[in-house]
Parts: sequence; C-alpha cells; structure tokens
Amino acid sequence: MKADTEYLWFNTGKHRDFINITDKVQSLVRRSGITEGFVLVSAMHITAGVYVNDAESGLIADIEEWLERLAPYRPDYRHHATGETNGDAHLKSLLVHHEVTVPITNGRLDLGPWQQVYYAEFDGQRRKRVILKALGE
Amino acid sequence: MKADTEYLWFNTGKHRDFINITDKVQSLVRRSGITEGFVLVSAMHITAGVYVNDAESGLIADIEEWLERLAPYRPDYRHHATGETNGDAHLKSLLVHHEVTVPITNGRLDLGPWQQVYYAEFDGQRRKRVILKALGE
Amino acid sequence: MKADTEYLWFNTGKHRDFINITDKVQSLVRRSGITEGFVLVSAMHITAGVYVNDAESGLIADIEEWLERLAPYRPDYRHHATGETNGDAHLKSLLVHHEVTVPITNGRLDLGPWQQVYYAEFDGQRRKRVILKALGE
Repeated sequence: MKADTEYLWFNTGKHRDFINITDKVQSLVRRSGITEGFVLVSAMHITAGVYVNDAESGLIADIEEWLERLAPYRPDYRHHATGETNGDAHLKSLLVHHEVTVPITNGRLDLGPWQQVYYAEFDGQRRKRVILKALGE
Repeated sequence: MKADTEYLWFNTGKHRDFINITDKVQSLVRRSGITEGFVLVSAMHITAGVYVNDAESGLIADIEEWLERLAPYRPDYRHHATGETNGDAHLKSLLVHHEVTVPITNGRLDLGPWQQVYYAEFDGQRRKRVILKALGE
Repeated sequence: MKADTEYLWFNTGKHRDFINITDKVQSLVRRSGITEGFVLVSAMHITAGVYVNDAESGLIADIEEWLERLAPYRPDYRHHATGETNGDAHLKSLLVHHEVTVPITNGRLDLGPWQQVYYAEFDGQRRKRVILKALGE
C-alpha cells in the first residue's frame, strides 16, 4: 500500500472565489505512483468547500448566486456574537460539502468528461489550506 | 491490498429518475473478494447525484419536489448562454452530492437497516456513467 | 494494510441534537495503529447526518435554524402516508450529508485548527448507530 500527502495553500484576493485545482490533484496522484486507489481532497477550514462540477464561468456565477440565496449573508447569525461576521460562509461550506473522494484508475484521476475539482472560498483574504491524500497501490 | 472497479451505464427514459443501485454495488463488493474496506460510488457526470437514503416511493417524490424547490428549473441561469438548459441539474447535483463512500465489513456493504444507495438522474435521456471502486483487503 | 471498525450508539434525550464525536474518532485511529490512511465516519440511519465544522454553540444554533428553514417540518410530506412523521429529518440528512472521510497523517486525524466531527441527530429518542472505519497502513 502507498500513501502520499500534499497541502495546498490559498490566500485569495477576493472574499469569495472558485479555483480549479484538478491539475494539482492530478500532479499528486502522478507523484504518488498509485495506480489504483482514492484521493481525498478536503478543505481544512470550516468556511470553504471542495466540490466536483463544470469549469464554466456562467455556471460558477450561478453557483455563487444560488449559494447566496440558500445561505445568505446576514448580520444577525448567533455565531456573530463571537465577533465573527462569517456565519454564511459556514453554512455555504456545509451546503457544498468540504471534501470529495476521487477514484484513481491506471494512475490517473478517473473523472467524467466534464468533471473538475474546485476549491470554493467563502471567507478569503487569509491563508487557508486544503489537504490532498492519495491511498492505494 | 485489493482494488476492483466497475462502471454502470444509465440512459433513463425520463428527464429525472431515482434508481436503487444497492444490489449492483453489493455485487461488485462480492466479486472483489474484499472483506474490509471502502467502496466509492461516484457519478461521472455533473448533472447527476449519488446518495444513501430510504427506498420508499413517497419519500422519493418528496425529495424530488424538495430539490425543485431549492434548486428550481429557471430559463435565465447564466450557464444557459452556452446553449444548455440544465443549470438546475448542476445545482441539484451539488445539493445531494455526487458520491458516497460505503464501508465494507465481512465482505458485505455495512449499511444500516434502511440505507439504500441511489443514483439520482437530473438530466436524463442520454448515456451517463457511475463508477464503483472497491478498495481494501 | 490495516482496517479497524467501531460502532457508536446514540439515544439522544432530545428530538434533535448535535454531538461532537471527534475524540471518539481519534480514539479509534489511535487503537488501529494506522499512521497513514482514511477514517470514514458514516451515520447508519437515514434521518441523521455527520459533518465537519466548528464547535461553537451559536453556530450550532444557526445551523439548526438554517436546516429548519431549508428542510422544514411539514405535516404533508408524502412519506407520512407510511405512518412516519419524519420527512423533514430525511431531507435534513441529505442536506448536511450522512458521512465524512477524515485523513489520518502520522497516526492522528489530520484536521484543520477549527474542524470538529459532529453527529447530527434529526429524529432522536431512539437507538441509532454511526460506523467508524479506519483503513490504511
């Protein structure tokens, strides 16, 4: 069995951002030498998400607007009594989920034709991490 | 370590459909000879989902109605500027998530009494795939 | 390769509850002797969830209120024709998802600074289970 781990750091210029990290996940898989297995891609912060979907700018704008509709910014979240103002970012993270597991077949990410791995930042302009961990043989 | 992979193909007659694939996942696990491990069940398209819940037709109708309420069909998604009309199917896929990982114990899916694995088609009437990959010993 | 499994039982006094199970997951990882791998934490019932987020009581109240807004209790779910009254609990389970996979690095849960693993009970006051399964080397 083999395992290989990498940490990606982000510090986005914008408060919210959607970053395609598929190539970085593929690079780790190549380096690991794993031909059959899984790679876990997981945000290490509670105000960010990781998801798999299309690399199409219109859709990404739709996703951002939809997340704001279902988990809107509001001044009056109870969480804000701690001094934070990012209650909505926690809810957005729960909604898209903070992790995906991608299958590895023949040494490559076994994704469908339009599937791309995205890091979704909901409370940026600070240093944040994503863990990539590949496991297999 | 052992790994085994299978691809399920779907081409639903309806635009939306919910298909119980638990038996197919169990069949792969049996064939793999894995007694302890995980099986990943992951849609390879970005307008479909995979989830675990109850095989009860009333509930499935509730789920469909609920998804339409939270991620409705609309003509004016920005994604539709590409010529597509399936913006809602992308959002529904994000909402239910496109994958599950099911534990394998003693050579069987280790599911609770009512847990069933479902493929959720949100933009059907075309050929689409799900990957099943079992990993373990 | 090593695998280790544990089942956690819950019987909450309240209809809904949010329970931090991070220490229990860490204990299994320690016992397993696995230094590199994954641990799957998965509810075995279809009216409960497992998620990773902050151990802050205001946020937990926000999450509960938000789930009730997006997946409200209603008397008229079709699922209730079976005699059940917990249609909303199924939808809440789908919304937060019923499982997480946590990476194991150097024999410990590789979580970010504020990440905690939560069991979310949406239809309590009965015995329910969560499976923990660690896999790795």
